[in-house]
Amino acid sequence: MELLKSSELVSTASIQFADQKQEFNKRPTKIGRRSLSRSISQSSTDSYGSAASYTDSSDDETSPRDKQQKNSKGNGDFCIKNIKQADFGRREIEIAEQEMPALMALRKRAQGEKPLAGAKVVGCTHITAQTAVLMETLTALGAQCRWAACNIYSTQNEVAAALAEGGFSVFAWKGESEDDFWWCIDRCVNLEGWQPNMILDDGGDLTHWIYKKYPNMFKKIKGIVEESVTGVHRLYQLSKAGKLCVPAMNVNDSVTKQKFDNLYCCRESILDGLKRTTDVMFGGKQVVVCGYGEVGKGCCAALKAMGSIVYVTEIDPICALQACMDGFRLVKLNEVIRQVDIVITCTGNKNVVVREYLDRMKNGCIVCNMGHSNTEIDVASLRTPELTWERVRSQVDHVIWPDGKRIVLLAEGRLLNLSCSTVPTFVLSITATTQALALIELYNAPEGRYKQDVYLLPKKMDEYVASLHLPTFDAHLTELSDEQAKYLGLNKNGPFKPNYYR
Amino acid sequence: MELLKSSELVSTASIQFADQKQEFNKRPTKIGRRSLSRSISQSSTDSYGSAASYTDSSDDETSPRDKQQKNSKGNGDFCIKNIKQADFGRREIEIAEQEMPALMALRKRAQGEKPLAGAKVVGCTHITAQTAVLMETLTALGAQCRWAACNIYSTQNEVAAALAEGGFSVFAWKGESEDDFWWCIDRCVNLEGWQPNMILDDGGDLTHWIYKKYPNMFKKIKGIVEESVTGVHRLYQLSKAGKLCVPAMNVNDSVTKQKFDNLYCCRESILDGLKRTTDVMFGGKQVVVCGYGEVGKGCCAALKAMGSIVYVTEIDPICALQACMDGFRLVKLNEVIRQVDIVITCTGNKNVVVREYLDRMKNGCIVCNMGHSNTEIDVASLRTPELTWERVRSQVDHVIWPDGKRIVLLAEGRLLNLSCSTVPTFVLSITATTQALALIELYNAPEGRYKQDVYLLPKKMDEYVASLHLPTFDAHLTELSDEQAKYLGLNKNGPFKPNYYR
Amino acid sequence: MELLKSSELVSTASIQFADQKQEFNKRPTKIGRRSLSRSISQSSTDSYGSAASYTDSSDDETSPRDKQQKNSKGNGDFCIKNIKQADFGRREIEIAEQEMPALMALRKRAQGEKPLAGAKVVGCTHITAQTAVLMETLTALGAQCRWAACNIYSTQNEVAAALAEGGFSVFAWKGESEDDFWWCIDRCVNLEGWQPNMILDDGGDLTHWIYKKYPNMFKKIKGIVEESVTGVHRLYQLSKAGKLCVPAMNVNDSVTKQKFDNLYCCRESILDGLKRTTDVMFGGKQVVVCGYGEVGKGCCAALKAMGSIVYVTEIDPICALQACMDGFRLVKLNEVIRQVDIVITCTGNKNVVVREYLDRMKNGCIVCNMGHSNTEIDVASLRTPELTWERVRSQVDHVIWPDGKRIVLLAEGRLLNLSCSTVPTFVLSITATTQALALIELYNAPEGRYKQDVYLLPKKMDEYVASLHLPTFDAHLTELSDEQAKYLGLNKNGPFKPNYYR
Amino acid sequence: MELLKSSELVSTASIQFADQKQEFNKRPTKIGRRSLSRSISQSSTDSYGSAASYTDSSDDETSPRDKQQKNSKGNGDFCIKNIKQADFGRREIEIAEQEMPALMALRKRAQGEKPLAGAKVVGCTHITAQTAVLMETLTALGAQCRWAACNIYSTQNEVAAALAEGGFSVFAWKGESEDDFWWCIDRCVNLEGWQPNMILDDGGDLTHWIYKKYPNMFKKIKGIVEESVTGVHRLYQLSKAGKLCVPAMNVNDSVTKQKFDNLYCCRESILDGLKRTTDVMFGGKQVVVCGYGEVGKGCCAALKAMGSIVYVTEIDPICALQACMDGFRLVKLNEVIRQVDIVITCTGNKNVVVREYLDRMKNGCIVCNMGHSNTEIDVASLRTPELTWERVRSQVDHVIWPDGKRIVLLAEGRLLNLSCSTVPTFVLSITATTQALALIELYNAPEGRYKQDVYLLPKKMDEYVASLHLPTFDAHLTELSDEQAKYLGLNKNGPFKPNYYR
Repeated sequence: MELLKSSELVSTASIQFADQKQEFNKRPTKIGRRSLSRSISQSSTDSYGSAASYTDSSDDETSPRDKQQKNSKGNGDFCIKNIKQADFGRREIEIAEQEMPALMALRKRAQGEKPLAGAKVVGCTHITAQTAVLMETLTALGAQCRWAACNIYSTQNEVAAALAEGGFSVFAWKGESEDDFWWCIDRCVNLEGWQPNMILDDGGDLTHWIYKKYPNMFKKIKGIVEESVTGVHRLYQLSKAGKLCVPAMNVNDSVTKQKFDNLYCCRESILDGLKRTTDVMFGGKQVVVCGYGEVGKGCCAALKAMGSIVYVTEIDPICALQACMDGFRLVKLNEVIRQVDIVITCTGNKNVVVREYLDRMKNGCIVCNMGHSNTEIDVASLRTPELTWERVRSQVDHVIWPDGKRIVLLAEGRLLNLSCSTVPTFVLSITATTQALALIELYNAPEGRYKQDVYLLPKKMDEYVASLHLPTFDAHLTELSDEQAKYLGLNKNGPFKPNYYR
Repeated sequence: MELLKSSELVSTASIQFADQKQEFNKRPTKIGRRSLSRSISQSSTDSYGSAASYTDSSDDETSPRDKQQKNSKGNGDFCIKNIKQADFGRREIEIAEQEMPALMALRKRAQGEKPLAGAKVVGCTHITAQTAVLMETLTALGAQCRWAACNIYSTQNEVAAALAEGGFSVFAWKGESEDDFWWCIDRCVNLEGWQPNMILDDGGDLTHWIYKKYPNMFKKIKGIVEESVTGVHRLYQLSKAGKLCVPAMNVNDSVTKQKFDNLYCCRESILDGLKRTTDVMFGGKQVVVCGYGEVGKGCCAALKAMGSIVYVTEIDPICALQACMDGFRLVKLNEVIRQVDIVITCTGNKNVVVREYLDRMKNGCIVCNMGHSNTEIDVASLRTPELTWERVRSQVDHVIWPDGKRIVLLAEGRLLNLSCSTVPTFVLSITATTQALALIELYNAPEGRYKQDVYLLPKKMDEYVASLHLPTFDAHLTELSDEQAKYLGLNKNGPFKPNYYR
Repeated sequence: MELLKSSELVSTASIQFADQKQEFNKRPTKIGRRSLSRSISQSSTDSYGSAASYTDSSDDETSPRDKQQKNSKGNGDFCIKNIKQADFGRREIEIAEQEMPALMALRKRAQGEKPLAGAKVVGCTHITAQTAVLMETLTALGAQCRWAACNIYSTQNEVAAALAEGGFSVFAWKGESEDDFWWCIDRCVNLEGWQPNMILDDGGDLTHWIYKKYPNMFKKIKGIVEESVTGVHRLYQLSKAGKLCVPAMNVNDSVTKQKFDNLYCCRESILDGLKRTTDVMFGGKQVVVCGYGEVGKGCCAALKAMGSIVYVTEIDPICALQACMDGFRLVKLNEVIRQVDIVITCTGNKNVVVREYLDRMKNGCIVCNMGHSNTEIDVASLRTPELTWERVRSQVDHVIWPDGKRIVLLAEGRLLNLSCSTVPTFVLSITATTQALALIELYNAPEGRYKQDVYLLPKKMDEYVASLHLPTFDAHLTELSDEQAKYLGLNKNGPFKPNYYR
Repeated sequence: MELLKSSELVSTASIQFADQKQEFNKRPTKIGRRSLSRSISQSSTDSYGSAASYTDSSDDETSPRDKQQKNSKGNGDFCIKNIKQADFGRREIEIAEQEMPALMALRKRAQGEKPLAGAKVVGCTHITAQTAVLMETLTALGAQCRWAACNIYSTQNEVAAALAEGGFSVFAWKGESEDDFWWCIDRCVNLEGWQPNMILDDGGDLTHWIYKKYPNMFKKIKGIVEESVTGVHRLYQLSKAGKLCVPAMNVNDSVTKQKFDNLYCCRESILDGLKRTTDVMFGGKQVVVCGYGEVGKGCCAALKAMGSIVYVTEIDPICALQACMDGFRLVKLNEVIRQVDIVITCTGNKNVVVREYLDRMKNGCIVCNMGHSNTEIDVASLRTPELTWERVRSQVDHVIWPDGKRIVLLAEGRLLNLSCSTVPTFVLSITATTQALALIELYNAPEGRYKQDVYLLPKKMDEYVASLHLPTFDAHLTELSDEQAKYLGLNKNGPFKPNYYR
């Protein structure tokens, strides 16, 4: 299972990040900006909530930290809400397994060899059925795992129970306090006679904690796999400052993940999010989409297909020209703000929809955000005395002007697709597979292949992740003949495209 | 008109080219493989032919080299078919000007300053109305120009006449011999008292000639701007061999050109090419598209939109997954070859459609190539005694099997969109503008900014080209506020995206 | 407000109905087949439930029939759940008003004249915010109204409260018994000193009750407006049997309603229904849609646009050819049943998906029905001992085969869009406007215009309904010049198309 | 081959035609309005021209009427251009046969029985390869045929030659004079010892001639099959006036033909027509389509799919609402006339684009007509002294305003798809099959089934035509089970939909 040769490595140390404001040692508060800058698979609290809700309404108010629980084998090295929910969780995990074919395939391939034998992985991610499939895959590949939640709301308690019942040391429950959050992380890493040698992080909090509390641990750690925008950003800053002391793998920017999370996923979730919250009919609606990057492209394609009339705003002339060629009128927001029925932001920018525009929207206009954070719509500007807020449904507010005009604000300007729609397991499967492969690669890499730097996934690994997901579609890949490979100057097994191919 | 700061430069010396077979000093024969490996704006002989044909059927069989012609001002430093066609050509140029807004805008902006003052540009490109607009723009910017044709068939004689009448030293006519071809190039560069300091090349022949005959000229030459795949490939090989003695700009791989030439242009030309040759009805037809890169994506999107049922073959799992998500069945060619009505190759590979597949196609199946060269369909394998060829229209052959089965082969396997459809002026405008900007950049660059290497266009320049074309669509770009630019860490004037953004 | 001249009338007595089994005097049971054969705007119990739920969880178990309630003006001629919910209901009505522009426009136009002055309308429909807007419009036009619910589950209690508070005699609550149901209807019609002269029915129960109990009332009744498939069917049977004693207007088959309910609405609700129940990702999924009528066309278009690969089955060669031309493979179900991820029925037929097919579906296949009734999927055949049913969410069952294969059955085979998605107010607005116009027309028609027959809405009325909804889209209609109208032989005000135009 | 039972007949005597101006006895001149009001498959002179041109440029100026020609069997009962072209024509016919599967299927089915045995068919249609396939099919079914051309320009001379060589009495050539035209028709019908008993007409001229010259012939004639709008209109007028003395079948209004000719065919031909004439790039272009009937729907769908931004104008609120729901801005022409790049008329109306609008269009705007006739664009208004006309290509005029503004007018306002694109054989196949079935039906109908009236094709026959074309798409129709047929109240063999279904 040697995946890469050193010549295929790609250092991304030189990738520049625009947002230089966050410094690693200024920790954002837990609930505030943290959750806002996360990528799609992270803080999807609301989505999982629905599926899990039937077991959540427990009236047991005791803190898990105050309980003594053991699983059926007498093991008590975990801290979760309620071990009795394990059966429910197991069913959720089994259902998720059906849509995560790549991880199941990895398990099969690794039945003989154990590429993670000896690996001690400490993880900090959302704890959901999909994560459980990942964890159990890592174990099947030979690893030992200890795990905490990266978000105080997103844990599916019954899944945590199933994992604990299965012997995993899990420390997480839905509704942790900030103090609980760090306590759980600490329980994962601070154990007599056990030291992690791999980190799987989502948001950088686990990495941060080890840096701060147990810097010596890095001597044994072979690498960090990080998934989130925020976490990756922190790693680049550490690297820049010369403080990164182990190799790190940036899973977030792999092409497979980007295309799925942004273009394909948003194409579906924009419709889903709008329908679930407003029941709006798309046909004939006039919509302005701010930003024509991958997210904007997905939103525009979906709405156009459903019969909406879509306008686009852009700052980048290349994306602007793409919008034109794709059949969208490129406008400035003020040119159409009076006439549109729906306003969607997908820019990653701040203050794209400001009070001035909100004042000029027509009655009933729906305003929502599909972009990077909650800064795109200036929601704060709507908190003025003359405007009345009316919560009409979960995630739906009517903001009412003195003359009776109502603006329909979704998710208070936070990400619509995280708050009001769900993320298909198939998308999460791609991320989880990439994480598993990144762990295997870093753990097995020969000395010297990776320096103390941040690496993008090699194209070949991206291609491998993609290939593991093709059977889901009953898709049959063509293989190059020797003659063709020679003609193209390619290895028959790839990589087939340059690294920058999207 | 300082376009770039040195920090924005991008060396592409490390870009690897798969096709390593062509060496610079093994000149391909003029008619053979040369024209096959050219990009879209190059050898579009057939397309221009139609527009120009009413003036072309001259019965004057005298070689232009044997004629003495002068323009109305008494200038005779040119060699073309017939100076009397100048009026026709001028009208064609005027029509083209209307669809090349970016060059016209450049002329206006440069009315005060002359960024090419002192530039002596020697060019070797297709000589068409669009090229004429470029040449007259370069002159308006201060340059002197001498020009030859890069293709022995593609010259629009009346345009050449208009250029000669306008004072340009043009050496080109439709139907040159190979000897004529090199004679014309030589006449461009070999002139008492005039030495070029800039090269604008399309295919690398001009560059090759100077290398071979007048290597000392490179001392005064500030740079080469090259547009074609072939020419760029040669430059990279020169660079690799340490023989490139001036900076060169790779215009071919700019994002604007790539997206327009491939995705957007092919989306239209696949339909156009098939209709003009076969009048086929697209609705309900089963089509297999081999390759799901940009060209394949464009073909698939168009045919799906017209009601065809489209299958895709791919070797790259990432493109394969994209095909799946875009709604195409991913198959191997042999799974569908018996049932499809149309086969289209877009791979850049060789022997994608071999005799075995051709044998199994159904009666009436249409076979054509939209990819990189004429190698994708193994046309040679059809030249066997038992098969009858019947030319039913220009560019359309019926190949007839002994049992009466007919395959409809288009353009003998050469590029369909070059042979059987036209290239919109708007696309050519993007390329021409990029060429003009590349000349300005190289000519004005401060000492040391560019080494003896091949450079990709900086993102910013791509964005500038795009922005010059937005007015055509009455598209209005949004500008960043100072606050937003700061938040994003961007300069308000761009570049807005990383270089690898597509 | 004279809408029609007698020459424009269309008798539809000759329209044949396939389903001849239901006879008027064999009343279907309330919960059984009744609700199944209803059109979209009828039994959408589930959809309204969500919006209304916050006021529904009342612990008051007293039957409304046993309560004495009065509104704030002391009026007690109604029977509803709880008059105190009136404020909540009023807000819902106000929100609905914003999306029912046509009714609001009718109110304005009728401020001077009162085309329903003297009309005594007895109605039996779903009691929702949208119906309330209709009722208040009828009142504004001069009518008196008494109202009962046509479905024992669909009443929005707070809306009923708001209507009662506003002076309407409403007899309806959520969760009526069968006895309550008929008691409410009786209270509407059986009143000292008040006799209805118009009937607005949805399902035919009110009409049935009057026929059975108060046949003499028909002497004063000027006409019946009926909206549902079932009710219309009953009317045609009465007419056939020579027992229809007043004119009746078939609102169900108007083109506006058909196109909106079927094509445009299903285009959106298929996606919505699938997402809300299964969170399935559409991209790359293989789907078979059984039936390519309007509903099937809408489903196919939406799924294709979202990147699904869609197969179609059909019995009618014309629809089959349309499917081909629209780019769908036309197959028999058994050809694709093993490979598809989703099966959707839209045929109006019975036993389209039988056990044999269900046995051969692959693991995880989703099965649902968008057609006319719950007969399309043979759900009964799944109630066998070897299969396990597991309810995983509301409206979602896993049916598990002995080998572990799971089929995901939605809404137990009932209509997906009624059960699992919502109906946009805009669609209901079209129906309600048509009902209002039909009442006006029948009430004001001169003696003899309408016989004792069932009439389709005249084209002109359809066109009028459509025109009242155009302002929602800021759509501007072009008017014929006198010269053009003469050339086309049309009246400048329509009708513009033959009656059969769809 | 008894196709119909009398209960399935549909009299269309009551269909109203808007355009009441043309009376039968006021014959329009041959070249003037006649050809303009024809449907798509009629006067497609230009399209066939290209394919046939290589044999047409004969320098033989002798009128065919002055030549004595015989075929290889010594038969001379025909009058065509040149019998020597028969081989070329035969090849064209063979190619056409491959795309007319339904007629070939009819030939096979009729090998035993000869449903047209004894039929003497006189025909007047375009004489093309497709017509030849029809004629040879009729002969295979037992009929004798004599044929003339319905258009003086559309005859493919080599096809006529092949027919003559094959023994058909054909009287037609390309470039007939008006006198030739009637002479040819007369030669078809006026023959010693031979009287037609069936008429197949396209435009009504043949019918008119017999009415005028040989009214007694109608005693033996069993029926007329008419294909064109104009011819059908004349028949309805005869019927109205009580002068129709045999049954007539209106082939023009069959659903299969309408959908194919209008929606599906125009979806393709709008792109084809625009590309061939102007090479315009569709992406990003702003287009206004006047009229949203079937033709407009097809044009809009295609242009939207190619990335154009499409506006629609309509007079009919129902079509207007459809345009809105399909995602098009509904505007008045004057609202967008200044900004659009392309104007397309599809209304069937007159003076839709008048001089006032033409004056306000922007430079380079393309204007064309896809509607019913050449009246939609007021081309006459452009024939004023201050405007310059410049013919830049075949079918393309630049109209130049004094300020230099150019409007690009296509086909001088005549039908774009007839003049500038081709009609796929597959579409012609549908029409030809329908004609053949209509002849069979009328010829074999028992006494009394058809009165002296105009009949629409019964639904069942439409369905049969459709079913014969499904194998082309490898489409597999599902068959009703007995139980299902009973449930739906349908015959298992159809008809499956009401007659008005589109």
